Amino acid sequence: MIIFGKHACESALANPKRKIKRIYVTDRTKNDIRLAHNHPTPKIINIREFDKLVPHDSVHQGIAIEAEPLTDHGLKSIYNENLLVILDQVTDPHNVGAIMRSCAAFGAGAIIVPKDNAPTESGTMAKAASGAMEIIPICKVTNLARAMEELKKEGFWIAGLDGRAKGDLKSANLKGKTAIVLGAEGRGLRPLTQKNCDILVKLPISEKMESLNVSNAAAICLYELASGL
Amino acid sequence: MIIFGKHACESALANPKRKIKRIYVTDRTKNDIRLAHNHPTPKIINIREFDKLVPHDSVHQGIAIEAEPLTDHGLKSIYNENLLVILDQVTDPHNVGAIMRSCAAFGAGAIIVPKDNAPTESGTMAKAASGAMEIIPICKVTNLARAMEELKKEGFWIAGLDGRAKGDLKSANLKGKTAIVLGAEGRGLRPLTQKNCDILVKLPISEKMESLNVSNAAAICLYELASGL
Repeated sequence: MIIFGKHACESALANPKRKIKRIYVTDRTKNDIRLAHNHPTPKIINIREFDKLVPHDSVHQGIAIEAEPLTDHGLKSIYNENLLVILDQVTDPHNVGAIMRSCAAFGAGAIIVPKDNAPTESGTMAKAASGAMEIIPICKVTNLARAMEELKKEGFWIAGLDGRAKGDLKSANLKGKTAIVLGAEGRGLRPLTQKNCDILVKLPISEKMESLNVSNAAAICLYELASGL
Repeated sequence: MIIFGKHACESALANPKRKIKRIYVTDRTKNDIRLAHNHPTPKIINIREFDKLVPHDSVHQGIAIEAEPLTDHGLKSIYNENLLVILDQVTDPHNVGAIMRSCAAFGAGAIIVPKDNAPTESGTMAKAASGAMEIIPICKVTNLARAMEELKKEGFWIAGLDGRAKGDLKSANLKGKTAIVLGAEGRGLRPLTQKNCDILVKLPISEKMESLNVSNAAAICLYELASGL
């Protein structure tokens, strides 16, 4: 995968677990990066070569890295977290990246997604995550229902965000180990996912709008839940 | 401008103030739209023609509209609102669109931007706004400092979001007519904009992250401020 942009690349280079294969800079940015002894020597390329390396219209800021994706963490490795995000059918890399960023900002330890139709770790996601991809693991599970059961046994209270829920998130007054579940915009949570939640909550939005952008909804939930940690 | 996507187009067609020039559908979506008597007859085109009409990689859902941008509202027209968003140097259409959506969801009446370097109303923005572009006007002002002064005289309390502020938004306990000011990610508010705020506030984020995505930050602020309305 190609990671690009200043924040994303700096964080990747600072992450000892991230395997770096190649580093690309421009003549302008070559002195802006901090390398560890095991990093490859950066290759200086021009802007036209950069444009070929990163997705169309991406802001690369003159730095890109070819790297291995981080190894997938099993569910067990996140049992000791206090706040988790479960994403069911949310795949847009801008949204997932922004949610990673909010996770890191508000103390959520990981994102859990079903293996089928999982968001792909990409440079666009890393850019949107602004460094948070190195901190927040994406945990891909084969069976989301079973993973939710497992988390409940480990003491997590599982709250699903659903526009048709009766009570709102704040009134639910959730404390302690919590996992918040978010589904695709518009469609919301799938019936089975909904059934496996301990509680369904909504955000107090106007009837004028059906829903919020999913990363915006996640940010509000994490902000609200962080105050209960 | 070309508006595309189901929600954005439905809202544009339902907005009597939106001047519609042409409507494009596919054979599949031709019966999905509700037209008013003054709307032009939809033109049925194929997917390949759609791809030429909308930006690269955009999800158009088989409906697009060629429309006039809405007329710019003067600052006076929003004096009677209770909650406003001022964006200083925020131009990314996905972010501005998502902020419009949060404005509509949490009762903010308009977005104010400086005319120089203002975000352009585009199809991408309308898609991200998911219908909210028809409800939330963007008010372009020549001089942001003067506009802030004017709003203060009209009874607005102006709060700037800044990562280096001392107190956080919740503790500031803002009530009544409020305008929240957001700057570009990373750089934050410009010095003059900062100086013109009544108060600077921050969100309680971890030291691990420098900032949130700007639309995520806006969503949290609007969620928090809406409870004080």
